[in-house]
Amino acid sequence: MKRLTTSLTRREFLHRAAAVGGSALLLNTMNAWGMGIASRTGAPPALSGSGKGKKVVVLGAGLAGMTAAYELVKLGYQVEVLEARGFAGGRCQTARKGFTLQELGGEMQTCRFDEGNYINHGPWRIPLDHQSTLYYTRQFDIPLEVMVNDNDHAWVYMEDAGPLSKQRLRAAQVKADMRGHVAELLAKSVQARMLDASLTPDDQRLLLDYLEHEGALRKTDLVYRGRNGRGWAVPPGAGLNPGQPSDPLGFHELLASKVGKVYSAVQEFPMHATMFQPVGGMDQIAQGFAKRLGKKIRYGTEVQSIRQSPDGVTIAVKDVKSGKLSQVKADWCLCAMPLSVLRTVDSDFSDNFKAAMKSVSYAPVGKIGLQMKRRFWEEDDQIYGGHVLTDMKGINTISLPSSGWQKKKGVVLGYYHYALDAIEVSALSPAERAEFAVAAGEKIFPAYRDSYENAFSVAWHRVQYNLGGWAEWDQAGREKAYPTLLAGEGRIMLAGEHLSYLTGWQAGAIESAWQQIEQLHKKANA
Amino acid sequence: MKRLTTSLTRREFLHRAAAVGGSALLLNTMNAWGMGIASRTGAPPALSGSGKGKKVVVLGAGLAGMTAAYELVKLGYQVEVLEARGFAGGRCQTARKGFTLQELGGEMQTCRFDEGNYINHGPWRIPLDHQSTLYYTRQFDIPLEVMVNDNDHAWVYMEDAGPLSKQRLRAAQVKADMRGHVAELLAKSVQARMLDASLTPDDQRLLLDYLEHEGALRKTDLVYRGRNGRGWAVPPGAGLNPGQPSDPLGFHELLASKVGKVYSAVQEFPMHATMFQPVGGMDQIAQGFAKRLGKKIRYGTEVQSIRQSPDGVTIAVKDVKSGKLSQVKADWCLCAMPLSVLRTVDSDFSDNFKAAMKSVSYAPVGKIGLQMKRRFWEEDDQIYGGHVLTDMKGINTISLPSSGWQKKKGVVLGYYHYALDAIEVSALSPAERAEFAVAAGEKIFPAYRDSYENAFSVAWHRVQYNLGGWAEWDQAGREKAYPTLLAGEGRIMLAGEHLSYLTGWQAGAIESAWQQIEQLHKKANA
Repeated sequence: MKRLTTSLTRREFLHRAAAVGGSALLLNTMNAWGMGIASRTGAPPALSGSGKGKKVVVLGAGLAGMTAAYELVKLGYQVEVLEARGFAGGRCQTARKGFTLQELGGEMQTCRFDEGNYINHGPWRIPLDHQSTLYYTRQFDIPLEVMVNDNDHAWVYMEDAGPLSKQRLRAAQVKADMRGHVAELLAKSVQARMLDASLTPDDQRLLLDYLEHEGALRKTDLVYRGRNGRGWAVPPGAGLNPGQPSDPLGFHELLASKVGKVYSAVQEFPMHATMFQPVGGMDQIAQGFAKRLGKKIRYGTEVQSIRQSPDGVTIAVKDVKSGKLSQVKADWCLCAMPLSVLRTVDSDFSDNFKAAMKSVSYAPVGKIGLQMKRRFWEEDDQIYGGHVLTDMKGINTISLPSSGWQKKKGVVLGYYHYALDAIEVSALSPAERAEFAVAAGEKIFPAYRDSYENAFSVAWHRVQYNLGGWAEWDQAGREKAYPTLLAGEGRIMLAGEHLSYLTGWQAGAIESAWQQIEQLHKKANA
Repeated sequence: MKRLTTSLTRREFLHRAAAVGGSALLLNTMNAWGMGIASRTGAPPALSGSGKGKKVVVLGAGLAGMTAAYELVKLGYQVEVLEARGFAGGRCQTARKGFTLQELGGEMQTCRFDEGNYINHGPWRIPLDHQSTLYYTRQFDIPLEVMVNDNDHAWVYMEDAGPLSKQRLRAAQVKADMRGHVAELLAKSVQARMLDASLTPDDQRLLLDYLEHEGALRKTDLVYRGRNGRGWAVPPGAGLNPGQPSDPLGFHELLASKVGKVYSAVQEFPMHATMFQPVGGMDQIAQGFAKRLGKKIRYGTEVQSIRQSPDGVTIAVKDVKSGKLSQVKADWCLCAMPLSVLRTVDSDFSDNFKAAMKSVSYAPVGKIGLQMKRRFWEEDDQIYGGHVLTDMKGINTISLPSSGWQKKKGVVLGYYHYALDAIEVSALSPAERAEFAVAAGEKIFPAYRDSYENAFSVAWHRVQYNLGGWAEWDQAGREKAYPTLLAGEGRIMLAGEHLSYLTGWQAGAIESAWQQIEQLHKKANA
């Protein structure tokens, strides 16, 4: 054993542990080494050699493109980033006062939020698991704050929930009562000796003990009668007020309502706490890259065609303002445009490669920020951040801001929808979308309409240089097209969230860039 | 019904609703009125009349005393606050560079944390339910940030947990697996028709659906095989890495370990999210009051005796620096010293009142802040805030800071203990306490000892002007002594967390002050 551990690298050893003992042994081994549940991709690849004397043209100044550019510059490459927009970040955008957006065929929207208010209408969350994204917030000294992604005090409001339809329930009420009733049911089954065949007497005793605790069952009769974690009828206070407990929702009502399905045993990856957001807006990350890349990014420069030869790559570009055409030549190309856009660009990729690009679909996604002149969700309902869960058509979630606590105003995310909902609502004008969102929100919050001041909305599938929220692979695509795209073609490599298993996340873009520059560097040094 | 609602006040109507339909009807009614689960005490009492021409002496510039003083001044009273310490806040303290503390019979400690680092060694959390505390943070424009009070990614580390002893488990692993196994067990009972007597076929179907979802059971066989919310063996990433799931802990091991008892169906009141802390330290609240009260607070002024006559109150005081004795006279007295201290002061309270003061015990409580030169809990283990739960003797919890994310250094709460543990550890010198905490912490975090730089500890039961963490009432005390103390005696009223059902919380002190000044104002205007 000693010889094994000394002669093998940790990685090799872990692979053997996994092969021999499955992931349980793997985890225990990593645990013993202080590696946590698993190592994470928390830093760019450490590459040897140099890029001196070689030029790489990067297409797109989104997070993938800028990550690649930033790291390639460090390796000595000459780098030029072509960006069609007048600003960097790709989907990593924040709308604040003066920010403009014109969707394809749509009106020009100019954000009218008050100073200090904003909406992250692209990515808005940095999960703790996304160490790659956190790596750059550290590198760029971007202050973070907690993004409240789970709030049991927020409303659950369902229109189609049987006996609990159209009631504002706290998520905590649903969780406490559903789990309490379930614990009672199982505890009574144990007591009735129904589980003698499944569990030893010792385990039955331990299970009862657990259920009493988890479900707050009364020890004497194993009945769930509510608990203070679900909220008080009258909360305790000073003087002669010990508080008055509240009564639980009925088990049958809860079952019939199906509201228990708004939560699960634990938040699924990567949604669990602690979730972060940059102080002041997600675009701080984009700015962090852009500031450091400076003039290496050519803004307002739209890619017209992509050509390569055995010696190099030629990109035909158009200056968006002047319409002037020109060419950019480089030894290598890192193409970090979304596939939704890239597949519309004239190129000399092989037919096979072009077909691969077409085999992924892009998610229709819409968001709207509603500036409220009063933070009624805090003041009236004591909801601080988190999401209101609802089945109202086209809304999906209403999210409350995790910044500006107790300030006067705030921007509420009025909807965050995908697929057909997103397509339908995106056909509306900005004003109609706002009315749609307000009309839904006021069913839950009486002060919603009166507090509403102005809105900023986006339908990502209608945004020219994105044409969708994120890549959505199906099984067949992952098997056939995905490896083709990963390999790149000739002197061109691709990068982006679409080439990861973290699609729709900034970490996907960053980690894809890390991986692809490693490949590009290998090729360039071959 | 119409006549009823128009002729009754809301409060009266709610009382009737509660009487007629229990708290379910009460809640529904309040819900319908947009009052949330319950109204909260979110603002000081609106008092009519004036205090002009009357003087109140307030004993103690803790939160209760300062709340009372601040509101009484607004009513027109002449107010003088006597404070033995050189600073205001009572237990609302923050230790940062230069802060000193000398416990009774102990060494002088001077905090040596680096600039920007601190520990809230008194109150450290503001629950969303404590609208009274939040009220003053709004009044005083004190910026808040989220205090991560629940972190499923933090370690659970038990020394006495059977088969899971001395293993670092993520709370999420325990929750996911325990709930998964329990869901499987119940689902199989349903499937085996064991619950036909308890549930209708419809409810059984709905329950199965819920359990599959909550417990992540495989639909085909209702077996729990783990889920990504418990963590990955290898997390998904870019390129060809879809991630590798991790295996669940066994049901029997979990039961035998009893670790399921570290959580319950929901966080109990008032521990649930969203929890807050003032940016920069809890003493911002104390400062907010102190700044506004200015010279109305006489610092370094220790109360020697309390006397009253039908006409007024006379407080004998000693200047702590000079030892000079003098008297303060007033029409009324609001005594906001802890009972632990007040009962040691010479007074002319009745024997009955003195006995009442003695019938409450004060909690021995200890905390220690350990400055770490590296945030290894974030860097190595991806734990951002929250508590490490452990059964290690004398530790109870190790808490990670919710500020300074990703900065270089940080202050860890190395223990937070009560009762016997607190008494035992408080007998140690500051250096020995630090060693005690470090020796425990390094069992969980390999980098603990190497990263440790310096410490600041407090044992509240050994702090001269507190003599305990908070009041702890038993049933008999609540019934007999508590109402006596609430009523005050003659021209003296008491206030503090000890006169609330929120003992140990700042909200208890504030709400008690609100209640008692209302009584005092009534008496003064009678």
